[in-house]
Amino acid sequence: MSYVVITGASSGIGYESALAFAKRGKNLILVARREQKLNDLKSTIFEINPAIDVVVLTADLSDSEQVHNLYQRTKGYELETWINNAGFGDFAPIADQDLSKVENMLLLNNVGLTILSSLFVKDYSSKEGTQLINVSSDGGYTVVDNFVTYCATKFFVSAFTEGLAHELRSKGEPMQAKVLAPAVTETEFAYVAMGVEDLSDFPQTRTAEEVAQFMLDLYDSDKVVGLVDETNQFNLKNPLHPYITKI
Amino acid sequence: MSYVVITGASSGIGYESALAFAKRGKNLILVARREQKLNDLKSTIFEINPAIDVVVLTADLSDSEQVHNLYQRTKGYELETWINNAGFGDFAPIADQDLSKVENMLLLNNVGLTILSSLFVKDYSSKEGTQLINVSSDGGYTVVDNFVTYCATKFFVSAFTEGLAHELRSKGEPMQAKVLAPAVTETEFAYVAMGVEDLSDFPQTRTAEEVAQFMLDLYDSDKVVGLVDETNQFNLKNPLHPYITKI
Repeated sequence: MSYVVITGASSGIGYESALAFAKRGKNLILVARREQKLNDLKSTIFEINPAIDVVVLTADLSDSEQVHNLYQRTKGYELETWINNAGFGDFAPIADQDLSKVENMLLLNNVGLTILSSLFVKDYSSKEGTQLINVSSDGGYTVVDNFVTYCATKFFVSAFTEGLAHELRSKGEPMQAKVLAPAVTETEFAYVAMGVEDLSDFPQTRTAEEVAQFMLDLYDSDKVVGLVDETNQFNLKNPLHPYITKI
Repeated sequence: MSYVVITGASSGIGYESALAFAKRGKNLILVARREQKLNDLKSTIFEINPAIDVVVLTADLSDSEQVHNLYQRTKGYELETWINNAGFGDFAPIADQDLSKVENMLLLNNVGLTILSSLFVKDYSSKEGTQLINVSSDGGYTVVDNFVTYCATKFFVSAFTEGLAHELRSKGEPMQAKVLAPAVTETEFAYVAMGVEDLSDFPQTRTAEEVAQFMLDLYDSDKVVGLVDETNQFNLKNPLHPYITKI
């Protein structure tokens, strides 16, 4: 009996991905700060599929002590897939940024993700059928004006995860490492990041349900990157950033 | 009377860049953890050019409180150029990484650099003749096997700094933001990062003195990126990562 871990499962892409994996009959470990939201999701999942086990774990993944502690709490379960979905964005020119927000963004989007990825790889890279999926963004391949620091955190995620995928393949390890790179998605994340009440300024958006389906498509494929491109189409791709094996 | 700030000035590219700017008659603020190394450098600079003022400030820039405190201590000086050179690397497969080292690397290479860049931009972006130079790496444009997390930190630096350069230009601000991207350089950094005692396995290296000259070439140019390419040649370039002004 193995589990799919999803961080940032209380809303948006993480929430819808939890429902999508539940429909597939996957046992789930749901992680977020807001326990009530996770318990509500657990109840919703029970109505969809009472046969699966759902574990709720609360943690603030911008705090590295809580990150290590969360990983320890998953040690009692056999894991199949780890999805680092938790993250946030901040839409502002660099000169106008709230620096405590920026620091938390880097701690969550990069430090927390790197620690969890590395711990999962240490324990599971040689196990057949395991996957690590890190949620990046189109902004992890193209820098966007007034969204620069957020994009830099996502360049980190894309480069890190693609590099890991290369490393695992070159060592012949069975674990697959993958990057999901959505564009603007109709989620709480987007409203908070852009500081807007609707997304009508963005003619091309996807719903969180659609992106959760892309998550499953990526999960089912042997490609490394799942990207929503500039024409709003989802494509499965090989790694996009250049890579070399020797300096 | 204005100053050039150089972080990580106690050795390597930072040390040689301090000497190079001293020869140009620039007043300097030298930052690193090791006060004795900075005082020795200050004495060496006095022998080269007794006419300039050299200020020594010690700080551990992997600690964000010390990062903010360092910036406060520079407030008494008029700044002309800020060079974020401090950084370290760790050569290891992702599964074998020392995670406390990885966390410190992200805090220094990304969090510290982002806070210092943002504070400097807030205060100086509208001042003629100011520059922010962030030291990235070839690894900020190409991921290198067994050096993946370090490269991810440098993808962050390149994307962040190029994005800032675009933002400043689009707002018509006079400050220039630039990325220096060296390849393997004969420095303490390289020995520590690769865990080797010599660099004979790397046929193409540059000395820190050579890279300090590239720093000056970048400083003198109106290009955004100074890159040591795969043939070991230094080139001044426009931004390399894709950039868009609207999602």
